[in-house]
Amino acid sequence: MTSLENSEDTLFIGIDGGGSKCKAIISNLQGDILGIGLGGPANPFCDMPRALSSIVEASENALMDTGLENKLLSCLVAGVGLAGVNLPQLFQKLQEWKHPFAQMYLTTDMDIANIGAHNGQQGAVIIVGTGSCGFISLHGSKHTFGGHGFPIGDKASGAWMGLQAIEHTLLVLDGFSSNSLLAKKVCEYFSVDTGYELSQKFVSQASREYAKIASLVFECADKGDIKALEIVNEGINYLTILAETLLKDPSTRLCMIGGLSKYYILKLEPKLASLFSEVLNQPEFGAVEFAIQNWKKKAPL
Amino acid sequence: MTSLENSEDTLFIGIDGGGSKCKAIISNLQGDILGIGLGGPANPFCDMPRALSSIVEASENALMDTGLENKLLSCLVAGVGLAGVNLPQLFQKLQEWKHPFAQMYLTTDMDIANIGAHNGQQGAVIIVGTGSCGFISLHGSKHTFGGHGFPIGDKASGAWMGLQAIEHTLLVLDGFSSNSLLAKKVCEYFSVDTGYELSQKFVSQASREYAKIASLVFECADKGDIKALEIVNEGINYLTILAETLLKDPSTRLCMIGGLSKYYILKLEPKLASLFSEVLNQPEFGAVEFAIQNWKKKAPL
Repeated sequence: MTSLENSEDTLFIGIDGGGSKCKAIISNLQGDILGIGLGGPANPFCDMPRALSSIVEASENALMDTGLENKLLSCLVAGVGLAGVNLPQLFQKLQEWKHPFAQMYLTTDMDIANIGAHNGQQGAVIIVGTGSCGFISLHGSKHTFGGHGFPIGDKASGAWMGLQAIEHTLLVLDGFSSNSLLAKKVCEYFSVDTGYELSQKFVSQASREYAKIASLVFECADKGDIKALEIVNEGINYLTILAETLLKDPSTRLCMIGGLSKYYILKLEPKLASLFSEVLNQPEFGAVEFAIQNWKKKAPL
Repeated sequence: MTSLENSEDTLFIGIDGGGSKCKAIISNLQGDILGIGLGGPANPFCDMPRALSSIVEASENALMDTGLENKLLSCLVAGVGLAGVNLPQLFQKLQEWKHPFAQMYLTTDMDIANIGAHNGQQGAVIIVGTGSCGFISLHGSKHTFGGHGFPIGDKASGAWMGLQAIEHTLLVLDGFSSNSLLAKKVCEYFSVDTGYELSQKFVSQASREYAKIASLVFECADKGDIKALEIVNEGINYLTILAETLLKDPSTRLCMIGGLSKYYILKLEPKLASLFSEVLNQPEFGAVEFAIQNWKKKAPL
């Protein structure tokens, strides 16, 4: 057993890798935050070398932030949460990485979001932003629902909502569907008058471009627009089934997180909405907690 | 006026550029086919240099096929139909091409399909294959309906149908929707047991990958599967509105073409189905006819 494994002074780093940026925090075993750092995009599925350099960048920034001059990344026990590592090949590739840490525990972005939301306890989350999915960690087993990606999955997500709104607007512009406030707002948003102009905006666009108009769908629904209500209600129905599935064991602590959660939570059946708990911590805190939990299993104190 | 323009011996070449191949035919003013040639992919939107070299390749092959030893591409009047040239920038770029022909008349793939289907007369077409759209040429004006691309438009198309089928299958595999023959067939087709495996098959896939299972949706609908029937019926409803729009002037000659037309035509309301006319010629014949029509306008015989 090395000095690292039985030392109360061991430091931990939690890393939340995302498509736009990478966040790292450093804490001690008691969970006191000693430093925070940011890095570039860290989606290993899109760009593995970039993701790895972003992780190192964020980690070095966090280490610098601690002001601890005698510490190196090689002293830290890392918990890393990344999108896509539910793919066995990607998980394997990342495990083979000659990482700069003393030890690295790897898991999915959903897992660290879930650990963070429940402050290290077991529970479940619904994540609804650009994409959507459900994740549960209960009695030692973990399970994901949905999250199959755009355009085939991710129902109720911002990208799904944007796609519904654009499909509808194109039908209106072709004269195949009755006009609506939603179609009017979509045309205004993109400054277009014809289906041709609108469709040109979406040639080879990523899901996040669709997701940009999700708040507009909620806005039109609130003003009573029938089509927008239909889209929002289909999203709510999906999230309701998802929540009921995650709450099969009614003692499960369930949170909703992601950019659209603030809209959806207000629209759920009040009884169902009341079953959602407060998000206790952000994913990077989940990542550091994941590192601590795994390290404790290996190093009896 | 050059000798070309007033000569009865002028030869014409019709070119149908497509995403997988390019077809060229050479005819005289009377429409007798003298040679046929094939070339590589010719979608200028995806790859302009490749499209241009495929056009030249198909043209040279057609010229060789005529056996006319003293003829060069520079003797031919070309009619060229290409996807995407409804985009003004793409049309302009292609017009600036130093093409090898005596003259080149450029139009869309839909226009030459329409001219071909009605053997040079005005009319309308519904094209339903991987994508879908409606096109009408009447009293000198042309108009396109739909065809906004996957996944925002192209309702009723193979890609749209495949997307519906995969979305449904993922909901079934997650336990959020009742099982169906369609979901069973989709899983069999892709040899998958889980939503995770199925979604992995569709990461960054093009619309043609979705369109591959369209015939499977029709097959399940024919066996009474409720979900497949729902998808097919939504496709039929869209094509019905599209057909009614194109038939506003009831004298319009209307055809249905494309890979799914053989399935859909059997499923339309019999009264509506009876309003569809026979496809008289393929798009490359439309392209050569387009060349002849434009040349005649310029060269009074």
